[in-house]
Amino acid sequence: MTIKRSLLAAGVLAALSGPAYAGSEIETLINMLHENGMVNDDQYGRLMAELKQNQAQAKQEKQQVDAKLAEATKPSDVEVTVKGGIGVKTRDGKFESKLGGRLQADAASYSGQPEMGDGSEFRRARISYSGTMYNVWDFKLEYDFASTGSNGRGITDAYLAYTGFEPMDITVGNFKTPFSLDYLTSANNTLFMERALPNAFSSGRKMGIMASNETTHWSWATGIFGDSITNKGGQNDEGWGATARGTWAPINDGVHFVHLGLGLNYRDTGDSGKVGFDSEAESHVSGVSIIDTGDITSVADYYNIGAELAAGHGPYSVQGEYITTKVNRNNGKDADFDGWYLQAGYILTGETRQYKNGVMGGVKPSSIVGEGGYGAWELALRYSSLDLSDAGIDGGEADAMTYGVNWYPTPTLRFSANYVDVLEVDGGPNDNDEPSVFQVRSQWAF
Amino acid sequence: MTIKRSLLAAGVLAALSGPAYAGSEIETLINMLHENGMVNDDQYGRLMAELKQNQAQAKQEKQQVDAKLAEATKPSDVEVTVKGGIGVKTRDGKFESKLGGRLQADAASYSGQPEMGDGSEFRRARISYSGTMYNVWDFKLEYDFASTGSNGRGITDAYLAYTGFEPMDITVGNFKTPFSLDYLTSANNTLFMERALPNAFSSGRKMGIMASNETTHWSWATGIFGDSITNKGGQNDEGWGATARGTWAPINDGVHFVHLGLGLNYRDTGDSGKVGFDSEAESHVSGVSIIDTGDITSVADYYNIGAELAAGHGPYSVQGEYITTKVNRNNGKDADFDGWYLQAGYILTGETRQYKNGVMGGVKPSSIVGEGGYGAWELALRYSSLDLSDAGIDGGEADAMTYGVNWYPTPTLRFSANYVDVLEVDGGPNDNDEPSVFQVRSQWAF
Amino acid sequence: MTIKRSLLAAGVLAALSGPAYAGSEIETLINMLHENGMVNDDQYGRLMAELKQNQAQAKQEKQQVDAKLAEATKPSDVEVTVKGGIGVKTRDGKFESKLGGRLQADAASYSGQPEMGDGSEFRRARISYSGTMYNVWDFKLEYDFASTGSNGRGITDAYLAYTGFEPMDITVGNFKTPFSLDYLTSANNTLFMERALPNAFSSGRKMGIMASNETTHWSWATGIFGDSITNKGGQNDEGWGATARGTWAPINDGVHFVHLGLGLNYRDTGDSGKVGFDSEAESHVSGVSIIDTGDITSVADYYNIGAELAAGHGPYSVQGEYITTKVNRNNGKDADFDGWYLQAGYILTGETRQYKNGVMGGVKPSSIVGEGGYGAWELALRYSSLDLSDAGIDGGEADAMTYGVNWYPTPTLRFSANYVDVLEVDGGPNDNDEPSVFQVRSQWAF
Repeated sequence: MTIKRSLLAAGVLAALSGPAYAGSEIETLINMLHENGMVNDDQYGRLMAELKQNQAQAKQEKQQVDAKLAEATKPSDVEVTVKGGIGVKTRDGKFESKLGGRLQADAASYSGQPEMGDGSEFRRARISYSGTMYNVWDFKLEYDFASTGSNGRGITDAYLAYTGFEPMDITVGNFKTPFSLDYLTSANNTLFMERALPNAFSSGRKMGIMASNETTHWSWATGIFGDSITNKGGQNDEGWGATARGTWAPINDGVHFVHLGLGLNYRDTGDSGKVGFDSEAESHVSGVSIIDTGDITSVADYYNIGAELAAGHGPYSVQGEYITTKVNRNNGKDADFDGWYLQAGYILTGETRQYKNGVMGGVKPSSIVGEGGYGAWELALRYSSLDLSDAGIDGGEADAMTYGVNWYPTPTLRFSANYVDVLEVDGGPNDNDEPSVFQVRSQWAF
Repeated sequence: MTIKRSLLAAGVLAALSGPAYAGSEIETLINMLHENGMVNDDQYGRLMAELKQNQAQAKQEKQQVDAKLAEATKPSDVEVTVKGGIGVKTRDGKFESKLGGRLQADAASYSGQPEMGDGSEFRRARISYSGTMYNVWDFKLEYDFASTGSNGRGITDAYLAYTGFEPMDITVGNFKTPFSLDYLTSANNTLFMERALPNAFSSGRKMGIMASNETTHWSWATGIFGDSITNKGGQNDEGWGATARGTWAPINDGVHFVHLGLGLNYRDTGDSGKVGFDSEAESHVSGVSIIDTGDITSVADYYNIGAELAAGHGPYSVQGEYITTKVNRNNGKDADFDGWYLQAGYILTGETRQYKNGVMGGVKPSSIVGEGGYGAWELALRYSSLDLSDAGIDGGEADAMTYGVNWYPTPTLRFSANYVDVLEVDGGPNDNDEPSVFQVRSQWAF
Repeated sequence: MTIKRSLLAAGVLAALSGPAYAGSEIETLINMLHENGMVNDDQYGRLMAELKQNQAQAKQEKQQVDAKLAEATKPSDVEVTVKGGIGVKTRDGKFESKLGGRLQADAASYSGQPEMGDGSEFRRARISYSGTMYNVWDFKLEYDFASTGSNGRGITDAYLAYTGFEPMDITVGNFKTPFSLDYLTSANNTLFMERALPNAFSSGRKMGIMASNETTHWSWATGIFGDSITNKGGQNDEGWGATARGTWAPINDGVHFVHLGLGLNYRDTGDSGKVGFDSEAESHVSGVSIIDTGDITSVADYYNIGAELAAGHGPYSVQGEYITTKVNRNNGKDADFDGWYLQAGYILTGETRQYKNGVMGGVKPSSIVGEGGYGAWELALRYSSLDLSDAGIDGGEADAMTYGVNWYPTPTLRFSANYVDVLEVDGGPNDNDEPSVFQVRSQWAF
């Protein structure tokens, strides 16, 4: 019979090609029984009708389950993370906000002259709120509760940035003037508790507008800056300046890097006509400066030029800078000051100090305390020198050797001990003094 | 056979009414085969037993899957959102907390007399934490890091509100005294960077208790207020006051609105007996006042009366206020001061300035920078006048014309440029001066 | 036939033992039909092949659905909660961060002498950020926006703690020196708005390092502390001290408790050589002290000894302390001061005041305003006494009776009214004065 043969053929086909749906054997069986005359045509018709109806219903139910499963297993629109800081971002990357913080608790003990009071302090105690809006607008507001005062003192980073241009980002607000590797490296990540003596020349955070870009091997930034936030000038025009920095990393592969940098910082002192440079003994607790020009008056403007060098090779890192400063005065002789430092670190536990975007990063321990590990351990040594005496200005000159050890129990924690040996102060208010400092810090940051 | 017929009937019924469950055709087939004598009674019994057992098991498995699907697809108890700010709320609406912030970075350049120093500042740099607890208790704490100082200076909104009464909300803490449309409109949303000259009469934020209610067409608020947070009176009783404001919006349909408002603010100066009014040139960076009564002494009390008018028609908006102030003195003549302004805005890109709860809202661009758009653009013009000379008090009088342009690239961003032309200062410490200001602002707020 | 019998046996077995899988009746039916000769061997083979293939496919599909269901119903890695504060923690307990806050808005009215100014203030307005990193490292940073000033004034708790040792936690940073039950009890939870007069002897928060442990029945803490954060010593060594406290709760079952405590606090005044003790009239708004030693000079060191007693019985609670202070002077006679208080509370609505870790907790209402309830109501009474006159130092002596009522509408809210009746001031700058205070507070805290 034609029909039987074709049904048989269909059955063979089904067996060869695989069944079209789960439970197809029942259809095959019914067809066979009909073919074999075990069910009559009427029964066959009823069975096939019921079968088709059930198949349709099963298919629909399966689709419903699949739809619900798809809904249930799709990622949420918003992703929340916590590793100390809290982060929230939309899955499409359009919005992201992060709450972070850091705490640095220091204690210091001083020997020798000048007299510096032993004690303790919070070096930094910050909360930050940062993120991205509508894909291309970044924002940040950070406040330092350890550095409070009037007129917004305590605001550190506070800016809006547009990242939608290909060649560069544009940043407006208060942020670090892009000058000096030591200064631009986050205080969470500096090799020692305090930056080297030539940090006296860093321009600090200022309100301004900056263009910048970073790649693996190059970075540049240039901006125009007003004065510090806390300067409420009244009738006086505030100071202003322009800064530029470029860096080149011919090698930067995550384990090895070589960094070269050059920076220029120009400042007009505004209607005040004053500038001063000073430095503590690489220690902040007592607040006593060992060399200090005091206020230099009748200043038209001044500029700093800095050259940077750094390199890393696995657990080894070295870093050095030379900065020279020229002060142009309307009355009185122009003055030249300069300083330099060279420092080296070695991570006993073998981790690599990070380098990215033209600045130094931190150390991420591969063994974590709290997960059965012991953290990362680092030894560090630095020589730094700063000369603030010239052209009748007797700020003094100082050289210091600093010995440090850092322990990173987790990626968010750091404990440091530093011994600063000021070799000799030449000139200035503390001529011939040779103070030394022992200081410790505990830090959490995220 | 009775049994066979009834089974047949059942089969027909099943075919007519639709199968009771997926796979029912197998039961129909078994019944048919039994009816046709293809399976004997014993086999039939075994088959039906197995079938029923399998049906029960299938049903149970389906229920388990359904239950798991229901669990997997039900909304989470807590919903997290991020659009710059971070919001967390429980699905039942019982709890909600929001973290928000704003940053306004300004720069200003001044011409003419009096001498005002060019410069930059953060006008506002705030973090806010607000929300709802147990359905009917609202809370907020906002701090301005740009306006820090001693004794809690920097706290802006800090309150607890009970929203469980039908006719009104009760608010306790520190918040804006409900007087003046210009003042009550958030500084994020004012048409110009700074409020008009008569804002000298606004009572600012005070600690107090307030009852208030808002509908689409009406709003009212009245409260009793103590002194500013920073007033640490010591032996002196602090000042206190009472404030009331009512508004009526006969038209308010989301595109068009007409607003009428009336406010009254009474202040007793406490044991200090002093009050003073002054105004900068609608510019905050230099901090120099152009007219200023100085401290008026022997003041018993004073009150302000204000009348408000505003209207919007699609992209057009106008707004004006007149405020008069009467100072009652124990010694010396009573003094009357007054001021007014009228301002108009036009949104080139066609959006509508929002109006709600008796205050002006902001502008939400329909085209967003970062999503291929260009934002919203707005032009603005204002004339304002303030007279602080009366009864022998020579504060001076000033009139100013202000021109503004606002760009809203996203709902969370605003860039503004304002040119303030002080037409003339009459009397006061800067008699006959005609300063002008060019100032710009970048703002993020959420 | 062997085959038929075995098939039959298998069928019986299946019927007895239950089918091995859903839809097994189709296999049974096919076997029966084959056995009965209704399908031939070829057909039987094809049917069984199709059946097996379909079974395998069904099994695979079921596994896929199960896997998706397991994924969809597994708890998220991160859990977010909100009850005023926002909490985020990883499901594995490794990380947790919490954002909290509190606001206390006070108003006070004064009668009698000395003159104290009526007014209002924020007693506390705090944001806190705390949590856990890598299981065993706790952190906290809290700032009080109501108590701002220079050099980090406003920082309250700011520390890092290691909880990975079994016998004790180690805490480094700024936190409460562990002395006095009244002081160590959170200001959210004290029975009255202000602590008792002898709180003049509390050592406050200091920077230091502490070891501590708590169990249900015992607690101890001991630490070495530097000076207050705001002390920026310059050339002077900061003060330092050592503190220890132990508590024993022979009964502590959640409804009843008995607490005994003993504390010792030693302070070296550093290079300043000064210390002073004073107290307001258990009221902070005016800031006027009623008894005050002023600065005692030539102080070598001093110590406090305190004895604590507290007990609770359902809604009843009592608490008392005696503290004596000995000041050792290099020049001038040593001085002894002391004070004590005894207070009792009764919760009208029957809740129990919490006690945990050697300090008093708060009151959690069992009936909540906002969910149809009325909150918890508490009455309180206190007598306190402080003597600051000795060895020629005439600070004065004061006794005060305080009456209080507390309303807790929700676990996060508290409203308090206190009446402080200073019975008499003996000696000191306000000899014979008898001031009284009526003060109210609204508080949210989470």
